[in-house]
Amino acid sequence: MAGLALAPAFSPSGLRAQHEADRSARRDEPAKLDGNENPYGPSQLAVMAMMQTIERTPRYGFAEVEKLIALVAAREGVPAEQIVMGVGSGDVLERYAAWLSRESGEVVTATPGYLRFTQAMARHGSTVVAVPLAANLRHDLAAMAAKVGPATRCVYLCNPHNPTSTLVPAEALRAFAVEVAKRCPVFVDEAYLECSDDFAANTMVGLVREGHNVVVARTFSKIYGLAGMRIGYAVTPPVVAREMNAAGRGNTAFRLNLLGAVAAAASLEDSGYVEDTRLKIKAERDKLCALLKDLGRRYAEPQGNFVFFHTGMPAPVFLEKMAAERVAVGRAFPPLLDWCRLSIGTPEEMALAHAALRKVFAA
Amino acid sequence: MAGLALAPAFSPSGLRAQHEADRSARRDEPAKLDGNENPYGPSQLAVMAMMQTIERTPRYGFAEVEKLIALVAAREGVPAEQIVMGVGSGDVLERYAAWLSRESGEVVTATPGYLRFTQAMARHGSTVVAVPLAANLRHDLAAMAAKVGPATRCVYLCNPHNPTSTLVPAEALRAFAVEVAKRCPVFVDEAYLECSDDFAANTMVGLVREGHNVVVARTFSKIYGLAGMRIGYAVTPPVVAREMNAAGRGNTAFRLNLLGAVAAAASLEDSGYVEDTRLKIKAERDKLCALLKDLGRRYAEPQGNFVFFHTGMPAPVFLEKMAAERVAVGRAFPPLLDWCRLSIGTPEEMALAHAALRKVFAA
Repeated sequence: MAGLALAPAFSPSGLRAQHEADRSARRDEPAKLDGNENPYGPSQLAVMAMMQTIERTPRYGFAEVEKLIALVAAREGVPAEQIVMGVGSGDVLERYAAWLSRESGEVVTATPGYLRFTQAMARHGSTVVAVPLAANLRHDLAAMAAKVGPATRCVYLCNPHNPTSTLVPAEALRAFAVEVAKRCPVFVDEAYLECSDDFAANTMVGLVREGHNVVVARTFSKIYGLAGMRIGYAVTPPVVAREMNAAGRGNTAFRLNLLGAVAAAASLEDSGYVEDTRLKIKAERDKLCALLKDLGRRYAEPQGNFVFFHTGMPAPVFLEKMAAERVAVGRAFPPLLDWCRLSIGTPEEMALAHAALRKVFAA
Repeated sequence: MAGLALAPAFSPSGLRAQHEADRSARRDEPAKLDGNENPYGPSQLAVMAMMQTIERTPRYGFAEVEKLIALVAAREGVPAEQIVMGVGSGDVLERYAAWLSRESGEVVTATPGYLRFTQAMARHGSTVVAVPLAANLRHDLAAMAAKVGPATRCVYLCNPHNPTSTLVPAEALRAFAVEVAKRCPVFVDEAYLECSDDFAANTMVGLVREGHNVVVARTFSKIYGLAGMRIGYAVTPPVVAREMNAAGRGNTAFRLNLLGAVAAAASLEDSGYVEDTRLKIKAERDKLCALLKDLGRRYAEPQGNFVFFHTGMPAPVFLEKMAAERVAVGRAFPPLLDWCRLSIGTPEEMALAHAALRKVFAA
């Protein structure tokens, strides 16, 4: 932050001192590896876009949000009319649940799993049909398909899955989605897919383009490193986006913030960012897996920016041991209460995590 | 933006040139006086808070949002449990309408008026009972009270009113609200009240504190000059906030963006900001009223950051004439289709507006 042009009233030296004090205080904070955030982000173009736009924060960001929607639509190869923007993708999950729930029924999903959508469906009166993961902690597609019936309002999958970080093979998922979508919508939450080894081969957005009853959600909170800025979206069949966006000024600057919009747009225009970041995450993820192997811990084959591994002790005990080493790790994910989810951080944070894991598992 | 410390890849001189080109392009943009935004904002402390927090955008802003909620609650003199934060106050209006609409009925409001809440109620199945303003374009409280009956789900007022900028006398509103709140909730939208001559005497938040069935909404989009950042809130009876916040992770960093949260918090901590800005707005508002008087135009007595005046011609015609002079003014507000709402801008923007008004009304 050195060298900012400051209004005289601010005393640059005083602010600089405060800033350094803040940084220094943060250096003593625990490594925050509990939220699947991405400290390698955001793109430097996103940072510059935010800085250059701060002077426009008195204005609603209509033009900027329109630009973002156009970029997103172009990226996904669909008309803008098939995009539902959200205050993070969680907002899209909540609103899709509300939209679906004009009639309640059942929602089929995996357990353990990410709960925001299914909890929203439950709040709106649907029953959650939770299908255990397969032994390799991937989705058990056959078992999920078997649960789809006349009452099913939606099948929800996160791929890579949260909390296990596993990717289900693309061909199997595609066949599953095409078949199930004949009976009910299939919602594929690809929040972490940009972290995987092969995004293009694994995204299901092609099914939306082809007209199947499939919804794909993405977020700028994960690989794009903009969790704080609350921008996500879904690519949906035309009727879904039309109806969801009709309510509450859905896709406009009344719901999306200006700096988040320009940061997200700049990120999409930063051609090298995702690949560079993916490789950094992969490098640390590989090192973590190697350590877990060394330590004799089982882990799920990871493709997100986090690793799910067997701790052999109750989650609260493990969390406390790690916290004592200044590492914050993911909460309990029932029913796998003796496993842990650890997010990939910076090399410094991961060094702290490695040391903590060695100590905890050596004891 | 001079002097920013940039990563070498960015070429500071290139970026600076781009920035200057952007600014220069904007100089040729019309004066944007159509959105009741406040170009005197935001607080310089808010700008600094955003700049210093940009490096934390990969993180969800949980601590920052908690801090904002605590500041807001302290400002309003209520426990944090009575605060409903929103993605702008419009989001609070939408969610309150949804919450109320578990049972549909009628919503009583003024016409012309701000439509977001009543449109949301209508979408959820309620009937809008629109009561004409009094002759001075203030709320006709007696006429509104007369419309309250067993089917009334809520009475909604904006004070100062949008689009007329009028303030209804505090004692009359207080008596009205206390009486009506015995029968149904009274929602007082105080989005513009910080722009008025006497905020303290006119806010109805004391009624919420005293336990009446009253909700008061505020926003950081108006006097705080943060429309782009999407932060607003309501102060509600405890049960309302509890139930509204129970759904969809209401008051958390899953819904509020980090930079908006730190900007709003910094604004509240900037003790001189509101008063300074109020006086700047008032100075330009007074000058505009003097001009309208000169030009023989009737106007409503204004207390917001905008003035509503009689044009004597259809809204589209007047909008086009003003646009030809590079001034964007408010849209049509039926049924007063030969009136116009003009937002207070910077002295430069207002000079353009004055010249345009002189030309249009001289012709």
